[in-house]
Amino acid sequence: MDIVKELLAGSRLALSRAITSVENEYENAIQIMRDLYPHTGNAYVIGITGPPGAGKSTLTDKLAREYRRRGKTVGIIAIDPTSPFSGGAILGDRIRMNELTMDEGVFIRSMGTRGSLGGLSHKTGEVVKIMDAAGKDIVIVETVGVGQSEVDIAKAADTTLVVLVPGLGDDIQAIKAGILEIGDIFAINKADREGVDRLQVELEMMLDLNQYKVDWRPPINRVIASQNQGVSELLETIEKHSVWSKQTGEREVRHSKRIKNEMLSMLDEQIGRYIIKKMAESGEFDRLIKTVEQREQDPYTVVDGILKSILR
Amino acid sequence: MDIVKELLAGSRLALSRAITSVENEYENAIQIMRDLYPHTGNAYVIGITGPPGAGKSTLTDKLAREYRRRGKTVGIIAIDPTSPFSGGAILGDRIRMNELTMDEGVFIRSMGTRGSLGGLSHKTGEVVKIMDAAGKDIVIVETVGVGQSEVDIAKAADTTLVVLVPGLGDDIQAIKAGILEIGDIFAINKADREGVDRLQVELEMMLDLNQYKVDWRPPINRVIASQNQGVSELLETIEKHSVWSKQTGEREVRHSKRIKNEMLSMLDEQIGRYIIKKMAESGEFDRLIKTVEQREQDPYTVVDGILKSILR
Repeated sequence: MDIVKELLAGSRLALSRAITSVENEYENAIQIMRDLYPHTGNAYVIGITGPPGAGKSTLTDKLAREYRRRGKTVGIIAIDPTSPFSGGAILGDRIRMNELTMDEGVFIRSMGTRGSLGGLSHKTGEVVKIMDAAGKDIVIVETVGVGQSEVDIAKAADTTLVVLVPGLGDDIQAIKAGILEIGDIFAINKADREGVDRLQVELEMMLDLNQYKVDWRPPINRVIASQNQGVSELLETIEKHSVWSKQTGEREVRHSKRIKNEMLSMLDEQIGRYIIKKMAESGEFDRLIKTVEQREQDPYTVVDGILKSILR
Repeated sequence: MDIVKELLAGSRLALSRAITSVENEYENAIQIMRDLYPHTGNAYVIGITGPPGAGKSTLTDKLAREYRRRGKTVGIIAIDPTSPFSGGAILGDRIRMNELTMDEGVFIRSMGTRGSLGGLSHKTGEVVKIMDAAGKDIVIVETVGVGQSEVDIAKAADTTLVVLVPGLGDDIQAIKAGILEIGDIFAINKADREGVDRLQVELEMMLDLNQYKVDWRPPINRVIASQNQGVSELLETIEKHSVWSKQTGEREVRHSKRIKNEMLSMLDEQIGRYIIKKMAESGEFDRLIKTVEQREQDPYTVVDGILKSILR
């Protein structure tokens, strides 16, 4: 039986294999995605992001449990901020989820950043679709909200949750400004810590300044994930955003945008590959690089020439 | 007189304008880069990266002063981890450099991450070339080493310096693994803090495990940037790496790689623009997205079709 049929029939092994295939760009990856595509579009996608140390993993863990308690199946995609070179994954956080991994209604997958030149965002979208097709009601994508692609990933969700903690110093302030605008909901985690009121005031002030969201003022929820405090309320807030999003048409707008971005990134990636292959075959690229290195030609003129030779 | 001639003649205003032009993709940007290109290739590029809170700005500041003391001119490019949406820049760190900005031999420029889809890395490379053509002996590129593009930027240097501090918790450990492999030199900043010995031992262990660099074992330097301690020694270490790099041919290899990556990213960017323009003109893309949204077609088939229509 083929992998997609097995996956649709509920096989966890097939689900795992499909993801591996896409992640490693195996030959059958595109066929898998083609076959899966008609079965996607049912999962609700939640992006969770925030600075290192905000406790995103723990909160993801607790949210997933809460969804399970309410009878929903959950897929979790954890983007590991690990080596883009070694492909190594830090498993510490994931081990905390052990209890969850024993639950048939939960599927957890860590993804590294290896081999990606902006490609991670695209691949994450594919893994979301795979979990969606496999029947997960909720798909949570967890990223460290610091780089551009991490931000891209988090905002490609139906609801984006930004997790912050009190007392993380100045550089973190800068990061906060960057992820402020993608937050549909803010969670202040470790809310028993000193500085929680100040952080809330700062956040409210920032939200006051950013009037780009006129219909939905991002709520700020206080939680203590490690003690499971405020998690159920946070889930309710996500529900509220979901309802608002559907009623106002926001969900559809985001969906269109997501499809558009995915297609553009696919085009980008495939054209990139086409160029590299074509140039490698002829040895032409290496010859051209030499001329640029020796300053016989500037790279801009050379790139122009290549474009003219490959585009209609 | 045109901007490039003025820049080559030493005008700071022209230098600033050329950068603005490239950053905002003004029409004259490519012509500026074409004209500048023959005058590049003399600056020594130092990438400085590390987790938030490591004190990169202070160290950059102190290193720049030390280079000035030795009669070198310095360009500094500070990549701000700020909003990819608002384009806002956090100026706090830069204000610390006030004294430096009064020095004619130093040119500091902050770059945000706005409008970039992996494009920041490419633009940073262009700004390096502009400072290079403007006669800066040393160009320091400072980034927060957390996202993929930040890592890409930092490793596109002649010498990459990774700055760490004792006692930054677990998530930071994960980040360290990611930037370990790009460090030619490690600086442990705030070396008077508790935990400095442990951090050094951990680093040495990681370096022992990563035998990818056989000829150059990345040295670990302890510094207290705020007190200017160890900065002169760090500069000596950079010099050593520079000499080694030149003698072994490593510098040339990196240079080739950098040119190749720059050209690929230019190709990528320009093709992306070509596609968007072509699709927008015909309204074709919107029509195709609709068919995907309604699941009449899968995106993979549609992308295939588009590729066939634009590539030779």
